[in-house]
Amino acid sequence: MKEAKKRNIRNLSPDKMNKFLTLSLLITLGIALQLPAQQISIEQAVMQAGLFAPKPSYLWGGPDGAYLQLKNNTIISVQAKTGRESTLLTRDELNVILQTSGIEAIQALSLPEILQDGAFRFKSGSIIVDFDWNQKKVIGKFSVPVGSENFILAPTGKIAAYTAGQNIMISDNSGKSKPVTVDQEKGFVNGQSVSRNEFGINSGLFWSPGASRLAFYRKDERKVPEYPLVNITATPASPEMIRYPMAGGPSEVIQVGIFNVTDGSTVFLEEDAFGNDRYFTSISWDPSENYLYAGVLNREQNHLFLNQYDAKTGHKIRTLFEESSEKYVEPLNGLTFNPIDPTQFIWQSQRGGFNHLYLYRTDGTLIKQLTQGEWVVTDFPGWDKNGKYIYFRSTDPSPLERHVYRMDLNTGVRVPLTPDPGTHEGLVSPDGRYIIDSYSSYSVPRRVLLKEIGTREVRNIFDAPNPVANLSMGQYKSFTIKAADKKTDLFGYLVLPPAMDSTKKYPVIVYVYGGPHVQLVMNTWLGGASGWQHYMAQQGFISMTLDNRGSDARGRDFEQIIHRNLGKAEMADQMEGINYLCSLPYVDSNRIGVHGWSYGGFMTTSLMLNYPDIFKVGVAGGPVIDWKYYEVMYGERYMDMPSENPDGYDLSSTLPRVKNLRGRLMLIHGDIDNTVVWQNSLMFVRKCIDEGKLVDYMVYPQHPHNVRGKDRVHLMRTVTRYFQDHL
Amino acid sequence: MKEAKKRNIRNLSPDKMNKFLTLSLLITLGIALQLPAQQISIEQAVMQAGLFAPKPSYLWGGPDGAYLQLKNNTIISVQAKTGRESTLLTRDELNVILQTSGIEAIQALSLPEILQDGAFRFKSGSIIVDFDWNQKKVIGKFSVPVGSENFILAPTGKIAAYTAGQNIMISDNSGKSKPVTVDQEKGFVNGQSVSRNEFGINSGLFWSPGASRLAFYRKDERKVPEYPLVNITATPASPEMIRYPMAGGPSEVIQVGIFNVTDGSTVFLEEDAFGNDRYFTSISWDPSENYLYAGVLNREQNHLFLNQYDAKTGHKIRTLFEESSEKYVEPLNGLTFNPIDPTQFIWQSQRGGFNHLYLYRTDGTLIKQLTQGEWVVTDFPGWDKNGKYIYFRSTDPSPLERHVYRMDLNTGVRVPLTPDPGTHEGLVSPDGRYIIDSYSSYSVPRRVLLKEIGTREVRNIFDAPNPVANLSMGQYKSFTIKAADKKTDLFGYLVLPPAMDSTKKYPVIVYVYGGPHVQLVMNTWLGGASGWQHYMAQQGFISMTLDNRGSDARGRDFEQIIHRNLGKAEMADQMEGINYLCSLPYVDSNRIGVHGWSYGGFMTTSLMLNYPDIFKVGVAGGPVIDWKYYEVMYGERYMDMPSENPDGYDLSSTLPRVKNLRGRLMLIHGDIDNTVVWQNSLMFVRKCIDEGKLVDYMVYPQHPHNVRGKDRVHLMRTVTRYFQDHL
Repeated sequence: MKEAKKRNIRNLSPDKMNKFLTLSLLITLGIALQLPAQQISIEQAVMQAGLFAPKPSYLWGGPDGAYLQLKNNTIISVQAKTGRESTLLTRDELNVILQTSGIEAIQALSLPEILQDGAFRFKSGSIIVDFDWNQKKVIGKFSVPVGSENFILAPTGKIAAYTAGQNIMISDNSGKSKPVTVDQEKGFVNGQSVSRNEFGINSGLFWSPGASRLAFYRKDERKVPEYPLVNITATPASPEMIRYPMAGGPSEVIQVGIFNVTDGSTVFLEEDAFGNDRYFTSISWDPSENYLYAGVLNREQNHLFLNQYDAKTGHKIRTLFEESSEKYVEPLNGLTFNPIDPTQFIWQSQRGGFNHLYLYRTDGTLIKQLTQGEWVVTDFPGWDKNGKYIYFRSTDPSPLERHVYRMDLNTGVRVPLTPDPGTHEGLVSPDGRYIIDSYSSYSVPRRVLLKEIGTREVRNIFDAPNPVANLSMGQYKSFTIKAADKKTDLFGYLVLPPAMDSTKKYPVIVYVYGGPHVQLVMNTWLGGASGWQHYMAQQGFISMTLDNRGSDARGRDFEQIIHRNLGKAEMADQMEGINYLCSLPYVDSNRIGVHGWSYGGFMTTSLMLNYPDIFKVGVAGGPVIDWKYYEVMYGERYMDMPSENPDGYDLSSTLPRVKNLRGRLMLIHGDIDNTVVWQNSLMFVRKCIDEGKLVDYMVYPQHPHNVRGKDRVHLMRTVTRYFQDHL
Repeated sequence: MKEAKKRNIRNLSPDKMNKFLTLSLLITLGIALQLPAQQISIEQAVMQAGLFAPKPSYLWGGPDGAYLQLKNNTIISVQAKTGRESTLLTRDELNVILQTSGIEAIQALSLPEILQDGAFRFKSGSIIVDFDWNQKKVIGKFSVPVGSENFILAPTGKIAAYTAGQNIMISDNSGKSKPVTVDQEKGFVNGQSVSRNEFGINSGLFWSPGASRLAFYRKDERKVPEYPLVNITATPASPEMIRYPMAGGPSEVIQVGIFNVTDGSTVFLEEDAFGNDRYFTSISWDPSENYLYAGVLNREQNHLFLNQYDAKTGHKIRTLFEESSEKYVEPLNGLTFNPIDPTQFIWQSQRGGFNHLYLYRTDGTLIKQLTQGEWVVTDFPGWDKNGKYIYFRSTDPSPLERHVYRMDLNTGVRVPLTPDPGTHEGLVSPDGRYIIDSYSSYSVPRRVLLKEIGTREVRNIFDAPNPVANLSMGQYKSFTIKAADKKTDLFGYLVLPPAMDSTKKYPVIVYVYGGPHVQLVMNTWLGGASGWQHYMAQQGFISMTLDNRGSDARGRDFEQIIHRNLGKAEMADQMEGINYLCSLPYVDSNRIGVHGWSYGGFMTTSLMLNYPDIFKVGVAGGPVIDWKYYEVMYGERYMDMPSENPDGYDLSSTLPRVKNLRGRLMLIHGDIDNTVVWQNSLMFVRKCIDEGKLVDYMVYPQHPHNVRGKDRVHLMRTVTRYFQDHL
């Protein structure tokens, strides 16, 4: 829940083949630093300013198969073969043309969306512009209606859908929009993301490929209790009510509608398996537009039907397959169709223990499992245009890294395209000849290689200098230990003070997240360590981070050990990290602190209470205090309902263990946190008062779940001072 | 605003002549302590357990003019002349009789209300019982209806009024209640206290002496903005909206209704002077029941009309007199009528600079000013039954003390009845022969004397032993300094560590309130010092408290110096206290802290920001951060509206001065504070974040303006630890 962006990358709808969009902002430091080194300021550390190399963007689809990049507000076209650069378009040139077309000038050029050879699309003000770069003229304009939200242009570019308040509108660019839904009653919401963005859901509008139909989510949250967030900047303060379904309580009722653009009619998907208490996931259009596919998942999240529906009637045609589990199944992706044979699609599933690709026929026949092994597919953007190859990223050969592979579907041969150690993103040219391989690693701040696939031709097109060469960074030290099960490898790192005297003893701060869908330790620039950890190293604190069981990218069983017992295995593993720490001669085992946010705040609080002899100081931000205060979708996946798992809720709650508190613990919360609601930490404080335990507290007014922007510097100064005062 | 109870004692409606009810819970320590002394625990210090002597209660009106007191659940009758005791009634005896009358037995006897010779009244369960102690039988029963609130029995004992929801009902004990008001619309409230209990208002129902009519307040708060308090003990948390009129904003509209019990009709007082923006204060019935008196005060609170109204029609008959001021007038009391001549009443006013008594005729003629001098009448319960004498308490001869006086209205001779130094309460016998004088002082934990007035006959009927004889108390040291005006005397005290070595230097904590209507320094047992101050002395901290200009019981100009500039004179005076402190050889002037709550939280925060060089550590509880967030009634009295006094609001606001913060400051707030709303300290934290200033914070969930009960121990442990950590 902390790193929503991180999770979402696994769930991007496959919009552009060969375009690998991933997040790898965290890079690693692996080279020796030379003196004299500059001190890192807290501002620099927290804003991560100057710690990472720039990461240039590229785009295939320029003239004659060139790729495009941006330099000084100019789009440059680069021939892959020769590296020859030419100017495609300058901002000033573009603005002159825009103005003659009555379109607002743009301030800064960004890489556009390629439409077809010779044309691209970008947005200027409220106008979506299609531009022909050969003729240097505007070939299409589409106005985004004033006040529209969730605007989405259909693939045809001729029609768009958007939301206005609780309803959906469509616009054909004539200036008059038409309503798709006309709900008036409070509590109904159409066309927006549902299920609190779990299951990879981040949109509520789904155009069919030919734009004849629009699928959409309709959410009935009339029975979902309201939670009050208070706006203290109003005078007097005013409540803003949000719908927040709490574990075990009334939840949203989701429908999927299909709007027929031609006749204006709407049908809803028939649902016969689970009644109202279920999720609709993986919404995908059949290329023919005749069918819509959706995963129907029960509220318990352990039984999924992948269904094909008739787009005209909404009737279910068939269940293609089912997936079930004693713990949970978690559909995160849609169906990705073979561009040549639309009866074939690829489905991602960790049913075999690791997330892999399965080739299916639309009648439900499993053609074959495409990938296998004790590693996971992390991203699958799609097929090549001939349906011959697929490209994907995975954790093979190391869960600390990401590599791009090409698989020949006929032969099943899988070729690694990014062999250098590190965390890679790849951008394959439409003709499949080239890949732009952008990566970082412990020793590489950022490098971009242009490779001709299947040959040894490689050109280094970007190589960043070490951004921290002159900074007094901590010493990064990775380590591997066994989990509490004595067999599973866990990965971690230490950040040691820059000029540590290993004959002395240093205090340690454990930085922890610990929850599912997040991986903190990776072979990237800085190796997952934050600027703050390096800052604290400079202040004489060692820090440690360890990805315990339950964390991301290690497969089903590694993650699902946490099921119904959040915190248990995670803490057991963190304590293995503590054992490792205590084995180091330069660690002062009487001065161990712990800090984390969100799930990491839960972990911090839990560690302080379950191991009061070990942890002297803790700072828990936005902490889940009791899973009964968390929401249905994420919470029940891992914990089931409170009524179904009373022991698990009790054992994972921090409240019954407040009486164990011995060290200094500070809780921090944003007062309009709509993810982990404020009630969590306030109830903890109340319990501390009941139990006669002193506790420290800080609130970040008008901040939601995370404190971002410049206030984050204040936050981390507060955290820093707390450790300095008390550890 | 902190000490509502304290203020209210000045405003009790004159219900029982000769019965002086005052608060003097704080007493003083003035005698040398002998070793071995026991340490005071924080629990004992905060709960003030065992620091004060018991304070026995007495009641005149027993058989043959005896007074009554309670011993072991037995009502004892004591002859004033001889001191001879006899048992009037035991609890067990009473309970047998109650049970035969079908009335619930009582658990603990308390002193009842005397009705007349031979009868008293008390409550058992939901029954009000009139009991004849000669015949030993129940002579009257009145049932309090289930669910009733603000129940008030008429003086006749035959009829009662109460509120149910937003309306008023009356009951004649027949079991059927009748409605007095029938408001349905949200925002109308009848029969409850109005004006946020300012102006001595603490009730909304006023029976006429013969119960023929019922006057009541009707409040229209439809336009008063709602402020959200959040109940975090509900799952999910739920908002509870309170009406909170903020300075300068829409306020309550008050009416005074008069209900005619006989015909069921209601009239409302005509109001012609100030429109809807005004207060109705000092509601008083004429003994004839034909007239109602009320003060009509403009919203600015500087112009009062004391009006006589026709009880039948609500029409104004005349304005008896007006009071006005460049600053404010503050009517706090009703009219008190001469029991023999109902055309005479006494009015309290500080129009001459000090609160004194004025004898008026009901036609508006001022007969004479009864009391004068540079001291204030603090309590005036009423006349003797013959209209010959009045009794009152005042600050003559010292503002640190309270003494009871009798005045002969014919001669104007004023006789002190309680000459011993200290803070006295007096209970005069109905025949005026005796006074029970209960007092404490620096050297007297609690002493009760029975005196025959006008003679030298005195009997000591209670003398408490020193409750702290074996405790390691701090050394109390009172002092007098000049205010910042260089002429006004200010009173203060220090509490020094028990075995202070005056050749060493000690840190100091200033405990401050500083606002109007509160006096902290008095000649009572412990002298106003709290148990916590003694506890901190034991921990090696000196503490200082000083009543600055603006505080209570020193007259109009002393208080009104604060008008439109809250904090200015108060801080200037506190800094004189700091100068005094710094002149003491054993004070470490580099280690000065400050702590206060409510107005004291405002003062603490202001002192930290205005004198960052002086104050190293501050703890501000429930602080007003900007007077624009405070309410209309109290706030506008002192500050006018924000639009009328922008400079004053700006200068008194802590927010523009956050940038000066240098020391360690902790703010503490109850999250359901409905007096100083939470918005205050949250906005302060927000401003600190904006300004890059670190600040500490603590919340007491589900506590209102003051943290009471056992949680107060936790609070003061938190405060203590903060000073120990940082001062």
